[in-house]
Amino acid sequence: MLFKKVLLAAFVSLAVCSLQAQRTTLSSPDKNLQLAFWLNDKGTAMYELSYKGKAVILPSSLGFDLKKTYDDSPLPTLKEGLTVTSATQTSNDTKWKPVWGDVKEIRDNYSQLSVSLSQKGDKAIQFNVIFKLFNDGLGFRFEFPEQKNIQHFIIKEEATQFHLAGDHKAFWIPGDFDSNEFNPNTSKLSEVNSEDPKFAANIYAHTFFDKNATQTPLMMKSNDGLYINIHEAALVNYPAMNLLVDKSTNTLTSVLVPDALGNRAYLQTPAKTPWRTIIVSDKATDILASHTILNLNDPSVIKDPSWIKPTKYVGVWWEMHIGKSTWDYAGSMNATSFDAAGLKPTGKHGATTANVKRYIDFAAKHGFDGVLVEGWNTGWEDWFGQFKENVFDFVTPYPDFDVKELQRYAASKKVKIIMHHETSASVSNYERQMDTAYRFMKKFGYDAVKTGYVGHIIPRGEHHDGQWMVNHYVRVAKKTADYKIMLDAHEPVRPTGLSRTYPNWLACEAARGMEFNAWSDGNRPEHDVILPFTRFMGGPMDYTPGIFQLDLSYWDKNKKETIHTTLAKQLALYVTICSPLQMAADLPESYEKKLDAFQFIKDVAVDWDDSKYLEAEPGDYITVARKAKGKENWFLGAITDENARTATADLGFLEPGKKYTATIYADADDASYDKNAAAYKISKQVVDSKTVLSLKLAPGGGCAVSLVPIK
Amino acid sequence: MLFKKVLLAAFVSLAVCSLQAQRTTLSSPDKNLQLAFWLNDKGTAMYELSYKGKAVILPSSLGFDLKKTYDDSPLPTLKEGLTVTSATQTSNDTKWKPVWGDVKEIRDNYSQLSVSLSQKGDKAIQFNVIFKLFNDGLGFRFEFPEQKNIQHFIIKEEATQFHLAGDHKAFWIPGDFDSNEFNPNTSKLSEVNSEDPKFAANIYAHTFFDKNATQTPLMMKSNDGLYINIHEAALVNYPAMNLLVDKSTNTLTSVLVPDALGNRAYLQTPAKTPWRTIIVSDKATDILASHTILNLNDPSVIKDPSWIKPTKYVGVWWEMHIGKSTWDYAGSMNATSFDAAGLKPTGKHGATTANVKRYIDFAAKHGFDGVLVEGWNTGWEDWFGQFKENVFDFVTPYPDFDVKELQRYAASKKVKIIMHHETSASVSNYERQMDTAYRFMKKFGYDAVKTGYVGHIIPRGEHHDGQWMVNHYVRVAKKTADYKIMLDAHEPVRPTGLSRTYPNWLACEAARGMEFNAWSDGNRPEHDVILPFTRFMGGPMDYTPGIFQLDLSYWDKNKKETIHTTLAKQLALYVTICSPLQMAADLPESYEKKLDAFQFIKDVAVDWDDSKYLEAEPGDYITVARKAKGKENWFLGAITDENARTATADLGFLEPGKKYTATIYADADDASYDKNAAAYKISKQVVDSKTVLSLKLAPGGGCAVSLVPIK
Repeated sequence: MLFKKVLLAAFVSLAVCSLQAQRTTLSSPDKNLQLAFWLNDKGTAMYELSYKGKAVILPSSLGFDLKKTYDDSPLPTLKEGLTVTSATQTSNDTKWKPVWGDVKEIRDNYSQLSVSLSQKGDKAIQFNVIFKLFNDGLGFRFEFPEQKNIQHFIIKEEATQFHLAGDHKAFWIPGDFDSNEFNPNTSKLSEVNSEDPKFAANIYAHTFFDKNATQTPLMMKSNDGLYINIHEAALVNYPAMNLLVDKSTNTLTSVLVPDALGNRAYLQTPAKTPWRTIIVSDKATDILASHTILNLNDPSVIKDPSWIKPTKYVGVWWEMHIGKSTWDYAGSMNATSFDAAGLKPTGKHGATTANVKRYIDFAAKHGFDGVLVEGWNTGWEDWFGQFKENVFDFVTPYPDFDVKELQRYAASKKVKIIMHHETSASVSNYERQMDTAYRFMKKFGYDAVKTGYVGHIIPRGEHHDGQWMVNHYVRVAKKTADYKIMLDAHEPVRPTGLSRTYPNWLACEAARGMEFNAWSDGNRPEHDVILPFTRFMGGPMDYTPGIFQLDLSYWDKNKKETIHTTLAKQLALYVTICSPLQMAADLPESYEKKLDAFQFIKDVAVDWDDSKYLEAEPGDYITVARKAKGKENWFLGAITDENARTATADLGFLEPGKKYTATIYADADDASYDKNAAAYKISKQVVDSKTVLSLKLAPGGGCAVSLVPIK
Repeated sequence: MLFKKVLLAAFVSLAVCSLQAQRTTLSSPDKNLQLAFWLNDKGTAMYELSYKGKAVILPSSLGFDLKKTYDDSPLPTLKEGLTVTSATQTSNDTKWKPVWGDVKEIRDNYSQLSVSLSQKGDKAIQFNVIFKLFNDGLGFRFEFPEQKNIQHFIIKEEATQFHLAGDHKAFWIPGDFDSNEFNPNTSKLSEVNSEDPKFAANIYAHTFFDKNATQTPLMMKSNDGLYINIHEAALVNYPAMNLLVDKSTNTLTSVLVPDALGNRAYLQTPAKTPWRTIIVSDKATDILASHTILNLNDPSVIKDPSWIKPTKYVGVWWEMHIGKSTWDYAGSMNATSFDAAGLKPTGKHGATTANVKRYIDFAAKHGFDGVLVEGWNTGWEDWFGQFKENVFDFVTPYPDFDVKELQRYAASKKVKIIMHHETSASVSNYERQMDTAYRFMKKFGYDAVKTGYVGHIIPRGEHHDGQWMVNHYVRVAKKTADYKIMLDAHEPVRPTGLSRTYPNWLACEAARGMEFNAWSDGNRPEHDVILPFTRFMGGPMDYTPGIFQLDLSYWDKNKKETIHTTLAKQLALYVTICSPLQMAADLPESYEKKLDAFQFIKDVAVDWDDSKYLEAEPGDYITVARKAKGKENWFLGAITDENARTATADLGFLEPGKKYTATIYADADDASYDKNAAAYKISKQVVDSKTVLSLKLAPGGGCAVSLVPIK
């Protein structure tokens, strides 16, 4: 309610716009960002954006093509012929507390310009553009208010332009309607090309639409030193946005993910689009520290979030990826439908009662909250790549997985088992069974679920990132919240800050995670210093770090894969990655051999009172310190790409005058991601707020530091 | 089990087919039908069919084009290059008892030819064609057994040909992927043309694909006096079949309804198609009497069907169609979502507690089993034609519909309220809520549901008659059976005899029903003498006869519509239509004015021990007598098209020596469907098995007779 009051108090109607060419301008609270909005000669809505006098977005057009839902006939274009009927400026400066996150309180401070636009004549359609200008960026969205001339309509195309001021260095993945699991690439914008194999790994269920397109979050750096990030916020009831690169003009244009009929979105007035976001600064660390995307999302709908618990977990998972065990019970592709009587177990099934107990014991011994178990339910004999609608039922365990006994055992050890719902992308099937599945979970003591969407979406013709699926993911977030279940969605649409609204939605995958290291060409050494500037802009990722056995030939001498980081970097990821859901992904036996290093994973927090982004350069390095939620401990992570470097960590954020024991988990002198990667050294020293640590990072390396006050 | 034994006992392996050109022949048990199967020079599967020496199907080819599901790549065609690996003949002569129907026992008597076909080489795909030849027709299906070379596959096209022996007179509706609600047309096959407005009424949610296509059941009559009906049986996990007419050769070719991606069906071995059926006789009455389609369906899966009760009902329904009341509470298209507090009731809402009680009283007084109530639940303010996913929730009544009080009241009157679930074709939404909706029904005493699928299907791109929706309808039949709920599906795919397997699925609409008379150009006088030869071949229809107030201007002087039948024909429909679900569709006040005629509707049965199809000519006339289930009473219906005629009813089916009181509900002398349509006369006479009644039918008229033994 406070929010509304402030808005109303600041409401000022501007007498503008009888003159179409007139520019309306808006300044960020700190005046660094300047926005202008106007209509050009054709009556096209235009905007531009600058930062400290430098152009961020050159004059760029906004507009839509719509259709009538009833008969699919076109409506007059909203790309031109518009008039401005009103423009009002307001402002906001409030604070709010997230349920979890990188800080305990977030300031929501912006200047707002709301422009009402209309076509001419009796059949005129009206819509609004709302600009919110923060100190670190711009958000804008379109609203279609209730009006007599349109009620139900189809978005045929949203033509939102971002005309950039140069051929920036870009950190990007190929534009796609289904997969976000490509390697993040670094190139000039003009070099974007998803037909080039070096830019586009082979992903089974993906749908390219134009080789010159990228996904968001798109991170860029200009020649004149600006860091610019384009993404979206509050993606609800609308498809995700890709960006088509016009290389001749450095212009990006929105391409929304279509449905089976080629339509982009079905809307009904009053309707609003997601926010298009442009985060900008001359400091890379500001991009990482930005809360603008969260600020553009609605407040939490969960009144009592006390049941939502940031979680550190282990699981029956990596052992399947490395080939030690299997998801299936009776052999992959061995069965048209599971029949426990008719199929012979291979003996390699991972999710057995005994093996799960082993993980529960390990979790309990080392203080983990949960144990994820994949492959517990029937269906894995024939689940992948065949557009098969009825695979999993989410309630039928394999015969060697004793649900009741494991419920008893986990409870006795005060560990929670995390449910796994692989939908095989048969979402119609999952939606039919969600209630039954969640009731099953609650009955057997589960309060968190990892969902998966591997494959081509059913309903056939829909895409992972289209409106229908966007609505599905939100429906799952809402329904799990109804059941007080925490959610971790794998292969969903890329996140856009909705975890503010649905804080039970702890994390998503929606990017190339750790698992690719186990059976593909893997993730590049620069992977972890790009993702925080791209994928993580929208929210936490269940990235599953913590691999200690970096050479996978240990598990199987035929396996050639290695993880392209050092072990110390694996530790540092727990800090550079901000997520309330963190896995210690390796096997218990891997940790038991290196309990000294493992201590950092045991100690590190997953929820924070504060975060300090000390140094960063996208694609090169990141150094971050975070203060554990409700505690005086700090944790620090520094990581680098394939190049060795010395990170500098000014500990000025520590409480002045207080002494801390710093435990430093560093790369060994001869460590490198491609040689002796697992070599580390642990040292301790006493530090205070005046200390500046120099941390040597190996090629593909990192350093993790815990800072504990000395009593 | 008996069935299997007989089949095994009759199993005879034939040594055939080293010579590809060799013909395998099969005779029907009575030898009237002769089938031949062979491979032609190209290795294409061929068949032909004759009846008493007359060609029914000239040499016609069979085949498929398949794709791999995994990568959508084509598989070698099954249209040629085949060899026969085995051919076996078997036979069957058993009987079974339907849960309800036109007779109490059905004979299942056929000769069977099972042909195994294969491509050549290492990658050869195998499939089987199974022919079952009954005395009144042929059924054949394709089977894809488990085999190493295909497991998951896509039907790109089924190319089943029916090469007819002439340019037959046809009774047809346009080929379409979504609607079966066109007027049935009568023309030469060569005149089939859905672009001609006289052949294709305007239906909102329909999808033509070729002007030369028809749907099945397709009824035909040859110049040499053969009646030929082409349809399908046991349509499960496969799309419905349309028929493309090659007018130059009189050849029909199957066109399966595609999905959003243009694929026809997704199958996994072992797989089988529906049966393609060709019912044939030189007597039109044999077509009506055929049980071949039921015989080709699987036996009932419901072990204890005692809760399934053939039902005669009234309902809050016709009053909305004629404009006396509305489905909505607060005005059509008045709301984006229902908010009882924010919307003002119009006062025209039909499903009020008081009005429903009025129907309950009427039902109780006159011995009806049920009262259908439409418009009881929120959503009708904005439900139609807008591809809107979330409309109805199936559990939220309007504020003026008191669920609990009506449960109490109906129970006190021993009447069942019939639930209505209009899905607005948003099937994804319905599937999410089915369990909740059925639990709500059982909680409040409902044991029958009428579903509706008005509009374009969501998942968008799917069609009413495609594989996904076919699976949906069956899923609903199964799930309602789980809840012991009887089902009446409106706007589903045309039925194919599945009511044998799911006898709780009492009826479907899937054709142009009575409602079209209320607000369109209506149904033609010939409508009711075509439908039994077309739509009803697949199973019962909830046709909702019994309109007494035939001139609709009575209700609203601006209404110009009239029903294109006489009142006596409305009565006769209760016999010519065979359905375990029959509505007395008009309003109580209409019946209360004509209680003498209404007596026939009160008396007539809805389930039968026997049926005698006395005379029939498609498009012209039908005279049928049926014996009430478990009783000695017979009922007789005779109807005609726009031409007056005298029906001849030889009552030789009556028990010899027994006297019966015949109550004859006949058209008045001056009655006609277009003039004085409501004029009728009722007479009584004593008859016996030697009586031959001559029944005068007015233009568009009919005659209903009840035959009650004299004790």
